[in-house]
Amino acid sequence: MRVFYSEDHKLREARTELFGGELVAPFEAPFRAEWILAAVKEAGFADVVAPTHHGLETALKLHAADYLDFLETAWARWVADGYRGEAIPTCFPARRMRQHPPKDIDGALGYYAFAAETSITEGTYVAARAAMNCALSAAEHVDAGNTAAFALCRPPGHHAAIDLYGGYSFINNAACAAQRLRDLGAARVAVLDVDFHHGNGTQDIFYGRGDVYFASLHGDPVDAFPYFLGFADEEGAGEGLGTTKNYPLPRGTAYSAWSAAMDDALHRIETFGAEALVVSLGVDTFERDPISSFKLKSEDYLRMGERLKRTGLPVVVCMEGGYGVPEIGLNVANVLKGIAT
Amino acid sequence: MRVFYSEDHKLREARTELFGGELVAPFEAPFRAEWILAAVKEAGFADVVAPTHHGLETALKLHAADYLDFLETAWARWVADGYRGEAIPTCFPARRMRQHPPKDIDGALGYYAFAAETSITEGTYVAARAAMNCALSAAEHVDAGNTAAFALCRPPGHHAAIDLYGGYSFINNAACAAQRLRDLGAARVAVLDVDFHHGNGTQDIFYGRGDVYFASLHGDPVDAFPYFLGFADEEGAGEGLGTTKNYPLPRGTAYSAWSAAMDDALHRIETFGAEALVVSLGVDTFERDPISSFKLKSEDYLRMGERLKRTGLPVVVCMEGGYGVPEIGLNVANVLKGIAT
Ligand SMILES: [Zn+2]
Ligand SMILES: [Zn+2]
Repeated sequence: MRVFYSEDHKLREARTELFGGELVAPFEAPFRAEWILAAVKEAGFADVVAPTHHGLETALKLHAADYLDFLETAWARWVADGYRGEAIPTCFPARRMRQHPPKDIDGALGYYAFAAETSITEGTYVAARAAMNCALSAAEHVDAGNTAAFALCRPPGHHAAIDLYGGYSFINNAACAAQRLRDLGAARVAVLDVDFHHGNGTQDIFYGRGDVYFASLHGDPVDAFPYFLGFADEEGAGEGLGTTKNYPLPRGTAYSAWSAAMDDALHRIETFGAEALVVSLGVDTFERDPISSFKLKSEDYLRMGERLKRTGLPVVVCMEGGYGVPEIGLNVANVLKGIAT
Repeated sequence: MRVFYSEDHKLREARTELFGGELVAPFEAPFRAEWILAAVKEAGFADVVAPTHHGLETALKLHAADYLDFLETAWARWVADGYRGEAIPTCFPARRMRQHPPKDIDGALGYYAFAAETSITEGTYVAARAAMNCALSAAEHVDAGNTAAFALCRPPGHHAAIDLYGGYSFINNAACAAQRLRDLGAARVAVLDVDFHHGNGTQDIFYGRGDVYFASLHGDPVDAFPYFLGFADEEGAGEGLGTTKNYPLPRGTAYSAWSAAMDDALHRIETFGAEALVVSLGVDTFERDPISSFKLKSEDYLRMGERLKRTGLPVVVCMEGGYGVPEIGLNVANVLKGIAT
């Protein structure tokens, strides 16, 4: 299985994350991709290539144009206004307020963010574009007849919505992969999001579309980020009605219950008639993840990969979350091994 | 003119404010009320009394009950979850997300906040209740036949909406004063908000009501906090249609242009038939205010007070913003002098 990896992820190196009322060292940091790369190489996935450069054509089918402009210019505007820290939003268009981007960058940050933990930094946009390139290149590799590819995306993307960033996500890599597969000829594509956190961005992007199925297994948003999306009654709208499926799961969920939900999701994806599968792979479902509460063990990721393999679908795996512990590399490698068996 | 002041404002002493991507010492700090109190005493307003205790009856006519419950319990819930900093929200129910409070306090903070600069701290709720008591006591003092009263409210209140805090505001003191005047018999009441920032909370609370007129002079939200409310086309709704009036003004506005807008507002309030006037008094319109951009001078505040006096209406003045410089005391005292002449 080919691995798509760009050194440009290192340009996304924030100093600060707002957590527990303090500015702490970010959980989403360059070492994550380095640990994962080392582990997948060690597991035998030695075909590591840089992604090809892509323009914004695919992303513009998913994100608002003004949002992508904002991402590209936000850091320069922030610096021009003389702020000293990293770019963090402070004011948000809440209930009964106007939904329109202010001219002021401090206000614009709040308009385009749904979360304040994720700072925008000098290299963020270039890194996000490189992650998008990994996802698009992986999709093209699978379209060319390969059964699977791994996009080692960093920063992750599944929280990035039509015109909202947050949750360490800026451009939705998995959504880009799904769209690219569609554009290259797959009539129907499914995205299965197995990150601990609900893929609110991916859901938002495809909510009204009948050609892309979105299923997500995640910590119940009643007590897990992103709190305000990912409930079981969200099923899509308009042409997309019935093509969104959420599995909010309680704290402490282990692989037996988790995999039953995944089975259900994959049956639905089969019924839907997907011709290709994009997996938003977060390994923050691991029992020792520092910010999540599921109880998956390292060997469970092997079984997860084997189950994905049994769908018989070509698979594009996009890296999402997984934090803090060295096992993130092993756990990702185990998923890939399962798929590659 | 009687001054209502509670020592309990000192219980609102946050260590951190999110500003420019850093956690800085808050602009809204206890010294503000102390400087203002000293200056108004020196100006001859020696009748300083503690407010009488009030329950939540009035506030419950303006704010959602679940919101007031949240304010009362937020700090204890935050501490119980083991967070180390002051309580600052990180995730918000943005566009196309669900508007429902999560069980988790980290999520609940984002549900009830429209801004992340304002931390909730141990004494915040008690201080906010004391500020509310000042406003209610001042309203009752005016209802009893006095022509004016000054509620030295701290924390301020005009950004606090039906179920949203932010902008240093938790309970809307000025709205409480207006409601109390209504309940004591005034058929129609007006709130004139002269703080540099739009009084988004007060507007939100009275937007659908025809018995309370709300007029605000403020920095154009296109480049000033709170960014997402305070535009000229917001005129009220339903029974309140025509009873909201906003004057967004450009950076650098001096008293000549500012006072012309105030004249217009007061004419409208007269036409409306207000029987009493509540003034949300921010002196962050001052030329050397550290976070604002208007150019009022200290002598302008005397003229502002004299103009308010000429309405012939009984006046409840509620303290809102004004930061950083010693002149905030003089400027407030000048307004009171103008009203008292
Ligand atoms: Zn995650
Ligand atoms: Zn203000």
